[in-house]
Amino acid sequence: MVNPFFKNNGPFKLSEILKVLSIETFENNSDLNIIDIKDLQNSNPNEITFFHSKKYKLIANNTKAAFCITYENLKNELPKNCKPIIVDNVFVATSIITAKFYPDAVIDDYDYNVEQINDTKFNDNVKFGKNVLIGQNVSLGLNCLIGHNSIIEKNVTIGDNCSIGSNTIIRNTLIKDNVRILDNCVIGKHGFGFFPNQNKNLRYPHIGIVIIEDGCEIGCGSTIDRGSMSNTTIGKNTYLDNQIHIAHNVRIGKNSIIAGQVGIAGSSVVGDNVKIGGQVGISGHLKIGNNVEIAGGSGVIKDIPDNSKVMGYPAKNIRDFLRKNK
Amino acid sequence: MVNPFFKNNGPFKLSEILKVLSIETFENNSDLNIIDIKDLQNSNPNEITFFHSKKYKLIANNTKAAFCITYENLKNELPKNCKPIIVDNVFVATSIITAKFYPDAVIDDYDYNVEQINDTKFNDNVKFGKNVLIGQNVSLGLNCLIGHNSIIEKNVTIGDNCSIGSNTIIRNTLIKDNVRILDNCVIGKHGFGFFPNQNKNLRYPHIGIVIIEDGCEIGCGSTIDRGSMSNTTIGKNTYLDNQIHIAHNVRIGKNSIIAGQVGIAGSSVVGDNVKIGGQVGISGHLKIGNNVEIAGGSGVIKDIPDNSKVMGYPAKNIRDFLRKNK
Amino acid sequence: MVNPFFKNNGPFKLSEILKVLSIETFENNSDLNIIDIKDLQNSNPNEITFFHSKKYKLIANNTKAAFCITYENLKNELPKNCKPIIVDNVFVATSIITAKFYPDAVIDDYDYNVEQINDTKFNDNVKFGKNVLIGQNVSLGLNCLIGHNSIIEKNVTIGDNCSIGSNTIIRNTLIKDNVRILDNCVIGKHGFGFFPNQNKNLRYPHIGIVIIEDGCEIGCGSTIDRGSMSNTTIGKNTYLDNQIHIAHNVRIGKNSIIAGQVGIAGSSVVGDNVKIGGQVGISGHLKIGNNVEIAGGSGVIKDIPDNSKVMGYPAKNIRDFLRKNK
Repeated sequence: MVNPFFKNNGPFKLSEILKVLSIETFENNSDLNIIDIKDLQNSNPNEITFFHSKKYKLIANNTKAAFCITYENLKNELPKNCKPIIVDNVFVATSIITAKFYPDAVIDDYDYNVEQINDTKFNDNVKFGKNVLIGQNVSLGLNCLIGHNSIIEKNVTIGDNCSIGSNTIIRNTLIKDNVRILDNCVIGKHGFGFFPNQNKNLRYPHIGIVIIEDGCEIGCGSTIDRGSMSNTTIGKNTYLDNQIHIAHNVRIGKNSIIAGQVGIAGSSVVGDNVKIGGQVGISGHLKIGNNVEIAGGSGVIKDIPDNSKVMGYPAKNIRDFLRKNK
Repeated sequence: MVNPFFKNNGPFKLSEILKVLSIETFENNSDLNIIDIKDLQNSNPNEITFFHSKKYKLIANNTKAAFCITYENLKNELPKNCKPIIVDNVFVATSIITAKFYPDAVIDDYDYNVEQINDTKFNDNVKFGKNVLIGQNVSLGLNCLIGHNSIIEKNVTIGDNCSIGSNTIIRNTLIKDNVRILDNCVIGKHGFGFFPNQNKNLRYPHIGIVIIEDGCEIGCGSTIDRGSMSNTTIGKNTYLDNQIHIAHNVRIGKNSIIAGQVGIAGSSVVGDNVKIGGQVGISGHLKIGNNVEIAGGSGVIKDIPDNSKVMGYPAKNIRDFLRKNK
Repeated sequence: MVNPFFKNNGPFKLSEILKVLSIETFENNSDLNIIDIKDLQNSNPNEITFFHSKKYKLIANNTKAAFCITYENLKNELPKNCKPIIVDNVFVATSIITAKFYPDAVIDDYDYNVEQINDTKFNDNVKFGKNVLIGQNVSLGLNCLIGHNSIIEKNVTIGDNCSIGSNTIIRNTLIKDNVRILDNCVIGKHGFGFFPNQNKNLRYPHIGIVIIEDGCEIGCGSTIDRGSMSNTTIGKNTYLDNQIHIAHNVRIGKNSIIAGQVGIAGSSVVGDNVKIGGQVGISGHLKIGNNVEIAGGSGVIKDIPDNSKVMGYPAKNIRDFLRKNK
């Protein structure tokens, strides 16, 4: 699938890619065209991928990519079709190559090709407030409402019967039907992802998007960042209260309820029918199972299995916590 | 008093009300007009009320309502003038009936009848920025200031000497004199109240408003939700810092000070002269007494008596907390 | 240096100053002109200063100020050149005198002298969105971008290659080069500083500004308050995630990384190369050293020495915390 949000500037010759990585000698003599960069699982024979941890060994064994940015000690896990490109830091090298393919995904400036909605084809199809701005190639469904001063940036798709509040900014996002995004939200900006570097941090591209499924509600003043390589998703009929922050690559299941001022750090996965109390914090890269209940104010720093009720910081079984903290 | 914010679509015949609740047989043969739905205490002889917990037994004993949505095991607490309507879930039934009376209070779309303030009678009486939008029937006092891009929706009343910041949205709110609401706030949207339901949550109406008393200050990026059946109130000379979230039905007393990023969950009551440190969370339905001090970062999960100083999660006596956590 | 943001209404005769403090008898007969109020260290011979705590004794011993607002029990610490003005509450008296010199620094109303950027000299030099408002005497560097509906108030200076998001408000701020301020931020409003007083709190002036050094990024929905007597500063190449609150007088070093929803209370100082996890709270008037790491969700209530890793509430050595909280 072609990513509608970020233009792929490739293909690039292998030699061009090796050059930006400052790799001068490379055993493979051909100079193939490489058309895209993807993760181990999704890459195709004329693409490049990356592999940074033994944790992903089994997927690496079967990747279809032609080349893989990796470490010396991991290179033997790759299949014959995939030639290793050895680097000092897989993340930095991957970031540099991704930025070469997708230079527009590194930083987000405001969308300067928006128009007043009155001057667009939506003038007759959508109910809208004052000073609503619409980017190029935006798609809006039937019976939508967009409040005052809101900005729907280029390529955003919004389904039927959606209501967008006032002063809200939406970019790089796919919204299904019957969704309500309240006032003062920012949906779809790049995540807080970069490599720390003295004097000048190195930002990495975010080519993922935000997907908000049917029937969700997103409260006032919330921020949902888009993904880096994958997407940030909010499942069907999940409701978020005010002032919530959802970081990049987070995936939340369906029918979940998240109270005010919750923060979920990057790449964590939250199941279905989960209830999260106010001000809960969830660390990055965790898995919160289905039907989990997390008491307000808790700090979650490890995975939570299905059907658990937890509380505290670090969050643990709620009965144990309350017994210990009478 | 007629609610100026939400139009009552009643009266409705009792038979119409029973019909939406799918109640086919009802011992009372008359088909009275019912003109409103109110809580046990405030309802009048031609109104309907609801009663869901023994906790409210004494009030129920004296209600003046003609009908009461309740449970089988509570019906005998009602006086003779009040006929019980037995349901499986009092909250859901009450929500459905309230939505019948007040359909506009279920969801909040942007106010599409606002005008540029220059085109209103306030053009000469108020000092205002660019792109200020004013709804129908708004009332603004003397010497008020309204910043750029702010939106004052229909029926809002603001007293004398008030200053509203920029990019702020105010709806369903009554603001007294000498109040300052800073930038990027959203005041008066519906609370985060609904009945969870697979695939489609059931929202309940919020017919309460927000009341902000004399001399308050509300910091940037704060959200104050309006009440469901009662109002959300901020007492005289109470100051809120930035990024605070006040949920529906919360009542805060006078001369209180609330530092940044505090969240107060639904229906909690905070007394006078209370000091709340940054990032404190207060669970719903609690009572925080007068002259209480809550240390920053605390999580309050039970009532706090007058004159207490508390800290921790769960918050307890501050000396005990500090002794245990050296 | 003349403060470009707040006009000094002085000089004032000593007699005028004594009068607003309701001091009728004063041993010194002269009626000098006093041209400014500054802290102990920075005040000059024709200025007034204040001294409230023995902690600052050594600095008081050497102040150059002509007069000093102080307590009876501290007056003997002042040098001969500096006459004590004895008051009941140094903070209140200092606030009153500062407000006399700088009446515009007490409250922040919206800047009503802004113009549409199209009508300013920046029309050809800056890339800007719709409805961008620019105050008097604003300075913008080369290659800057300003998003839709953003407001740059009077006297703000922004360096080269900066990108300001949409719906963002900047006032009383000095921004260096290569800075990115994302959407929905409020930078430079007065701090949450006042003297609690029944029925009418007494606000004190904030004559400090916000300074954001080269290469910083400030995430969406963040608020950074300006200083009261000193400035609030964000060091070079420091990145802030979304929904962060930085209170007045806070100073953050360079190359630091602060994750989402962190709050730092007034006058705290954070070093260089500090990493702060999501939702951390830091109390006021603390010193966080260089190279410190604070785990997400922690509450910091005392100073943290250089090179420490801390976690918990109250935050302590991370290993001790994790051992105790398995």
